[in-house]
Amino acid sequence: RPTAVNLFWALDRMSRIVDENKDLSVSEIQKLLYSEADAIREEDVMISRNIGEIGFNLLSDLKKDGKPVGILTHCNAGTLATAKYGTATAPMYIALEKGWAGDDMHVYCDETRPLLQGIRLTSFELSNAGIQTTVQCDNMAAVLMEEGKIDIIFVGCDRVARNGDAANKIGTNTLAILAKHYGIPFYICAPTSTIDMAAADKTDIPIEIRDPDEVTETWYSERMAPPGIDVFNPAFDVSDHTLLTGIITEKGMCQAPYDQAFEAIGL
Amino acid sequence: RPTAVNLFWALDRMSRIVDENKDLSVSEIQKLLYSEADAIREEDVMISRNIGEIGFNLLSDLKKDGKPVGILTHCNAGTLATAKYGTATAPMYIALEKGWAGDDMHVYCDETRPLLQGIRLTSFELSNAGIQTTVQCDNMAAVLMEEGKIDIIFVGCDRVARNGDAANKIGTNTLAILAKHYGIPFYICAPTSTIDMAAADKTDIPIEIRDPDEVTETWYSERMAPPGIDVFNPAFDVSDHTLLTGIITEKGMCQAPYDQAFEAIGL
Repeated sequence: RPTAVNLFWALDRMSRIVDENKDLSVSEIQKLLYSEADAIREEDVMISRNIGEIGFNLLSDLKKDGKPVGILTHCNAGTLATAKYGTATAPMYIALEKGWAGDDMHVYCDETRPLLQGIRLTSFELSNAGIQTTVQCDNMAAVLMEEGKIDIIFVGCDRVARNGDAANKIGTNTLAILAKHYGIPFYICAPTSTIDMAAADKTDIPIEIRDPDEVTETWYSERMAPPGIDVFNPAFDVSDHTLLTGIITEKGMCQAPYDQAFEAIGL
Repeated sequence: RPTAVNLFWALDRMSRIVDENKDLSVSEIQKLLYSEADAIREEDVMISRNIGEIGFNLLSDLKKDGKPVGILTHCNAGTLATAKYGTATAPMYIALEKGWAGDDMHVYCDETRPLLQGIRLTSFELSNAGIQTTVQCDNMAAVLMEEGKIDIIFVGCDRVARNGDAANKIGTNTLAILAKHYGIPFYICAPTSTIDMAAADKTDIPIEIRDPDEVTETWYSERMAPPGIDVFNPAFDVSDHTLLTGIITEKGMCQAPYDQAFEAIGL
């Protein structure tokens, strides 16, 4: 996965344990690795919790008597992808912890073609948690915005450049442009491990191009495209920093100019 | 189909033949009906041909030496949906008639969830005609625009209101907003039979909401959503007239203010 920088970050931490303890026995190194993995998990829970607290404050500001807060999300940046709270879903789970009922919010999940993480994973975990959940095709999100059903958008991310350009699952950039058009606040939920200060902007973020079969055959009972047709299947896209309302990290809310905001939280 | 007005228009023409010839025998009425249907088909070919000629002029203006013109389309407004040339595809077929090679243009077809008309129908008919064709998921079109691969967008329509608001297959409005963002010309290809002067604006166009199973089960080898999950499945959306570069009819190009442009062509 060339795009997702925090996966490299976690693997680097694990490699370092091995490198720094080469004189120890294999079983001692195994114990240290387990302990490091456990620490990463514990930290991940705290990180998601902090992101969730900041996002929950935004939800609280939007809460009006008798009307659920409409939230749109894309792909899965939930408890199935990270530890406990997820990132984009953390504000919703924190809301439940703070006493909100499942119908105090209404989460609209893009199905997220081609791998359908939104309809398969996000709608499953949110409805399972008792949250009011609707699924729609990616190309239907604009209708929800036009109808005034979306108050706020939370998405995860795979890598953020120093200027705030944010790579996330394919389709996210479309939502960012739609949000700007409709005047809806759009937040990237990003652990600082996904912020890559070595990447100046979107041109430094490689985008993974995946197998054509994911578009033409995966999930289907038979192939859906003519034989041999050319397929374009980028797994990610990059939302320009000018489209974002803010980037929520575990160390606080970052807003433009992002390079200065990232430096202010110690990156 | 409450949204598509030209279907009612065609049925009205057929009904009128029956109403005006009630004194004739059944077999005589059948002959008149067949002849009316044939006339509608012939007119449809001429209508599409005129739309194609206007669209082809736009393509010619975009043609630069050695580089194919990048065209984006959505759903199927092609030869499988109308007579001979289609509407959104008419400029491409006319280009072939005028001597363009299949690789003088490159047509990118949105797969068009949930019914996949773009990948199943449009990519089939265009590649079959020898035109360079690529398919992508609906949420990937913005990447093509960002990368400068799209020079122009042609889509069909199901109903146009007097002010130019245009209803078409779900996802079209998203493309219109993206096109505005990226500064790409966006054209609705509309036979005048789809222009409904009785509809003042988008609020007068009913949108068909379809079966949830189309999103969660159709085409799949197994259900893709949690049981009982709420599904939002509008079949159409409306692109605001302010997002359109123009509406191409068989009687000429219409541009804002649309009500005056429509009156100028006799509507």
